[in-house]
Amino acid sequence: MSETGRYEDGHFWYTERQAPDVSLSIRCTHLYGERTPFQRIDFYESDTFGRFFTLDGLMMLTEKDERHYHEMLVHVPMAVHPDVRRVLIVGGGDGGTARELSRYPGIEVIDMVEIDRRVVELCRVHLPSTAGRLDEDPRIRLHYMDGVRFLREADDDRYDLVLVDSTDPVGPGEGLFSRRFYSDCHRVLGRDGILVNQHESPFYPSYSRSMQRSHQRLRDTFPIARVYLFHMPVYPSGMWLFGFASKGPDPVRDLRPDALSAQPDFETRYYTPSVHAAAFALPRFVERQLQEAAG
Amino acid sequence: MSETGRYEDGHFWYTERQAPDVSLSIRCTHLYGERTPFQRIDFYESDTFGRFFTLDGLMMLTEKDERHYHEMLVHVPMAVHPDVRRVLIVGGGDGGTARELSRYPGIEVIDMVEIDRRVVELCRVHLPSTAGRLDEDPRIRLHYMDGVRFLREADDDRYDLVLVDSTDPVGPGEGLFSRRFYSDCHRVLGRDGILVNQHESPFYPSYSRSMQRSHQRLRDTFPIARVYLFHMPVYPSGMWLFGFASKGPDPVRDLRPDALSAQPDFETRYYTPSVHAAAFALPRFVERQLQEAAG
Repeated sequence: MSETGRYEDGHFWYTERQAPDVSLSIRCTHLYGERTPFQRIDFYESDTFGRFFTLDGLMMLTEKDERHYHEMLVHVPMAVHPDVRRVLIVGGGDGGTARELSRYPGIEVIDMVEIDRRVVELCRVHLPSTAGRLDEDPRIRLHYMDGVRFLREADDDRYDLVLVDSTDPVGPGEGLFSRRFYSDCHRVLGRDGILVNQHESPFYPSYSRSMQRSHQRLRDTFPIARVYLFHMPVYPSGMWLFGFASKGPDPVRDLRPDALSAQPDFETRYYTPSVHAAAFALPRFVERQLQEAAG
Repeated sequence: MSETGRYEDGHFWYTERQAPDVSLSIRCTHLYGERTPFQRIDFYESDTFGRFFTLDGLMMLTEKDERHYHEMLVHVPMAVHPDVRRVLIVGGGDGGTARELSRYPGIEVIDMVEIDRRVVELCRVHLPSTAGRLDEDPRIRLHYMDGVRFLREADDDRYDLVLVDSTDPVGPGEGLFSRRFYSDCHRVLGRDGILVNQHESPFYPSYSRSMQRSHQRLRDTFPIARVYLFHMPVYPSGMWLFGFASKGPDPVRDLRPDALSAQPDFETRYYTPSVHAAAFALPRFVERQLQEAAG
């Protein structure tokens, strides 16, 4: 049985404490759970959100809104970099990020480094809507190891794009928010290279502190460091950020609006070129947090 | 005692059912509650959200994020209409909308029609951060009556701006989503007149159906009818919309970026001119819902 939740009126409710005094609950059926050497994994099924899964009791994705996240993570840098051939995904064991990349025939290599093999194996069984492409696209190469070590050992100038699709900066994901890791990302990126990373949230204080720290480190490492905002209803507060860091391209000025629509498979649920540009317009309090982080 | 919530570990948790199988809970203290002839009103205090109040068990506002809502409701049309002198607020008994309008010295009259006198009286006591301006700005005139009837009886061409700051289309707020009401809004607006209304949410199905119905009726009534999106963390899904309908001005093309910054008091938490323009860039699934609504 899942460890996170409660029974009410004979139904199980998955419950996540989003802040010390705030929680979101979803009525659901627990499908499967196990403890791996790295973390606890649970899969659930609900009416409104479809299938969803959690790591250490924290929501990773639901079928209803995962496309907000994966489309904004992938299509933003793909519409900015002039010619992406080689991509590295750090984390992303559910396969949603690889699925979105897989739409671009011009990409030659998609390396995916996931620390926990069981995330991939279980998502193949319980979340084929995200993990289904992992076995269908021969460009995707799975590496089961720590992303920090993989980056440490990777050659210079090897990638055009690095996507850090990580958990929060606690547990297995902690090293993916460090200066040394960002520095290695910079090193393995070629000319015009872009890094996009999961960048937490500006709303609840514990998340906004992580966000500010991450932003400060990216600014110290890359000449261009911005953040962009999107709606992620099942994440705490629903306000979620990605960091966009690059060796040159500007995420708005260099946007090619037809980058996605030129692909054979271009239907989206969330992303449009207008949404892309709009996501970089930040509410005033988020601008202030970033200014504070920059000192 | 409040009727909506539960006790856990000796603490009271306000709990709102946002969808049949989704609920948000906030640990809090119940400050006051009463049943008026129109609805049940409750006030609470919490660490993360500060004071908040509910009508019939549904979240109206919290001190932490009410400025997202009130700034986006007020400053968007104020930056588009060339010269607002006379404004009508329908609903808005908490005073937050009037507070934001009060920043503009150029406005001459702010009529506010609230059906439930007790909302205003209790917000004066428990939410001075929103209701405080109601007694300080002599331009604000309070009318305690049904907004539908007030609009029915109002003179033609009387207002430059009508703001419908309503609850959901059930209970006292139901008539504020009807064709006849929108038609009266059109009639009382002068040349270049703008209507902005609370327009529900695109995410959970029950809300998106209300949103589509409201959009269809506005399109049938006004030559310009758009919707814009903002982040409202305590509302269901956090994705919330306002409707923008006008007799001429376009919400993006006619945006004057210095409209707010030219005022003596211009500090915001959420609104910026960039956020204004960006809010009209809608995720693909929201665009599709609006296209469906338009038939």
